[in-house]
Amino acid sequence: MGYRILETDDIPGYLRERGHWGDGTDIRVREVSDGNMNRVFLASSGDGTRSLAVKQALPWVRVAGPSWPMSPERADAEARAYDQVAKVAPDKIPAIHGYDPENYALVMEDMSDLEVLRTRLNEGEPYGPHTSARSGEFVAQLSFATSDFGMPSAERKALIAASVSPELCKITEDVVLSEPYIEHEHNHWHEGLDDLAAEFRADTRLRTEVADLRHTFMTSAQALLHGDLHTGSIMVGERESAHVVRVFDPEFSFVGPVGYDLGLYWANALVSQERARALGTLSDHADQLRLSWEAFEAEFRRLWPTRLDAFFDDAYVDRFLRRVWTESLGYAGTEIVRRIIGFAHLTDLTTLPDPVPASRRALLLGRELIVRREELSDVDAVRAVVESLT
Amino acid sequence: MGYRILETDDIPGYLRERGHWGDGTDIRVREVSDGNMNRVFLASSGDGTRSLAVKQALPWVRVAGPSWPMSPERADAEARAYDQVAKVAPDKIPAIHGYDPENYALVMEDMSDLEVLRTRLNEGEPYGPHTSARSGEFVAQLSFATSDFGMPSAERKALIAASVSPELCKITEDVVLSEPYIEHEHNHWHEGLDDLAAEFRADTRLRTEVADLRHTFMTSAQALLHGDLHTGSIMVGERESAHVVRVFDPEFSFVGPVGYDLGLYWANALVSQERARALGTLSDHADQLRLSWEAFEAEFRRLWPTRLDAFFDDAYVDRFLRRVWTESLGYAGTEIVRRIIGFAHLTDLTTLPDPVPASRRALLLGRELIVRREELSDVDAVRAVVESLT
Repeated sequence: MGYRILETDDIPGYLRERGHWGDGTDIRVREVSDGNMNRVFLASSGDGTRSLAVKQALPWVRVAGPSWPMSPERADAEARAYDQVAKVAPDKIPAIHGYDPENYALVMEDMSDLEVLRTRLNEGEPYGPHTSARSGEFVAQLSFATSDFGMPSAERKALIAASVSPELCKITEDVVLSEPYIEHEHNHWHEGLDDLAAEFRADTRLRTEVADLRHTFMTSAQALLHGDLHTGSIMVGERESAHVVRVFDPEFSFVGPVGYDLGLYWANALVSQERARALGTLSDHADQLRLSWEAFEAEFRRLWPTRLDAFFDDAYVDRFLRRVWTESLGYAGTEIVRRIIGFAHLTDLTTLPDPVPASRRALLLGRELIVRREELSDVDAVRAVVESLT
Repeated sequence: MGYRILETDDIPGYLRERGHWGDGTDIRVREVSDGNMNRVFLASSGDGTRSLAVKQALPWVRVAGPSWPMSPERADAEARAYDQVAKVAPDKIPAIHGYDPENYALVMEDMSDLEVLRTRLNEGEPYGPHTSARSGEFVAQLSFATSDFGMPSAERKALIAASVSPELCKITEDVVLSEPYIEHEHNHWHEGLDDLAAEFRADTRLRTEVADLRHTFMTSAQALLHGDLHTGSIMVGERESAHVVRVFDPEFSFVGPVGYDLGLYWANALVSQERARALGTLSDHADQLRLSWEAFEAEFRRLWPTRLDAFFDDAYVDRFLRRVWTESLGYAGTEIVRRIIGFAHLTDLTTLPDPVPASRRALLLGRELIVRREELSDVDAVRAVVESLT
């Protein structure tokens, strides 16, 4: 019957047709669309004992409308990523009850009892002891399983072919990895940053380093990525007195450099740290890069002995992890910069009483991470850069 | 009607059916299969005024027979590579008259007036002034056009997806980039090399460097490669007093690191140099790495201003070419080593009266190229390594 755009009233019938819900019960539905791209509905039984979420990709960017068309096939990428993660880290994503490729719709766990990590941080809460560790493990588990270490060669080549994502990769290539460093109509910034924005556009060394990270993003087919692992793509909360961390929205997923996922997480951790510093609410923020890296590295090394291809020796994993570390720092830098002088900004900074001082510190940090990523060899070196900012 | 294996007697009818030859004329056919993998027939008119070659991939390795099955889809990869090259370097490949995907058969230019470069070199001839220059330009033209510099982003992602070649890449990953460094039933070598073969298997530094090159081969989607650019994949000769160079047999083609193509060419140039040195017929052999690199670099830089993506600045091309240089040296090293203590050896060395001294020099050179590729920063540094061999 072909693709149809689901409205609130369609959801009960849709869930029954697809076998997710029996005929007898009452289904209440509300739209809770929040991200820029897609529609999300929550369906629950009248007695509150059961609920599901339905997420549908529209053939355009939701917040822009049909004037900004975008293929709904991004939902295929999302479903494919969830499939891969479900094999190795099912506790770190929402439960997926079904994917309907005809309507680009996912039926999944209702996570409305959890909170978006960014929202919680912006309200002055700490990360808590588990969030960054689970996030680092998530990257390790997904990337190991979909790398040449964890996946048979032929299966991996098929995954690379199936996962190419020209439209969404192009957004990253443009919006994250070039526009902020050139004159572009997408760019905007607080007037208190005029001097730095101009300086960044004139910085030829910075430009060449970003070009290098951009080409790596385009060519380095290391593993399946989440592709957009910021603090708005992570939900946290408590269930039955256990801390729950759920990574979601992997629609930018493709096979790329592992450091891109870690880098996005770090950029958001470092920016949240600047927000907390500006507000005087700094608590555990400064430790999140370390916690996520150590969890990533520990989990990757724990998986290493299970690698399918024994030719990759123990000395090689050291070199590989070193490269991931270095590239992660570079991508963290590009993510910080683009979120301040590029197209889409972060509420972490924009909602500060005076966004300028924290934004200036973050911009300078971003540049250091990009241009000095080879020499910043460990967590302490990064911490020293943060502490040296004025 | 499905795939059928073509025999000599089928060729006239086949060429007529496919519209390559009218009904009136006499067609004489002979089989000239020479490589390991495929069948080749030459068809010519009785009066000698017209000729064509037909190349068909069998569902197995030709020289081994059905006991070594291999998908004939390698002919798809070959046809796809010829398509890409035809757009940018049609003078450097045979003219392709048609591809029949149902029968995995290419109808192409008869090159029987030309000679395989390896054959000519083994007979003591020099390279001549054009061979390496044209080969270097071939790599530059194909790689630029199929890189993110020369091809629009979405088209390139489609090319990556279409060009994955699990079966043939696995051969390279195994036979070239791991087996020679471990105990493997494929490996064999002259008994005069027992000590070096054992030393190489025990060399942990060498192993880690090869692992690095191997992982780069698996993950670095820089550009469409020929994939097997040795001196047996190049034909040379004179036509109408012009020097002709034709690269053929790109069935190992896939999107990979550019240095792999250059490295294979260099390995074969360096081995031919050792043969000539052993026989006392050294003429222009020592200059071929330089000639091919300079032609590659000059052509790539000539194309650079035509790049589609201006974010890649002039400083970035320097860095990119430096990386291609370094990786080319590494792959040259792996190709030399595998051709002496791995599965498939080179007649350049095996037909020497005493293959041992030249093979020992070449093996030691190969190792140096692999482990010292970062510090061997130019042609003179490589030449110094060659001259220091004992």
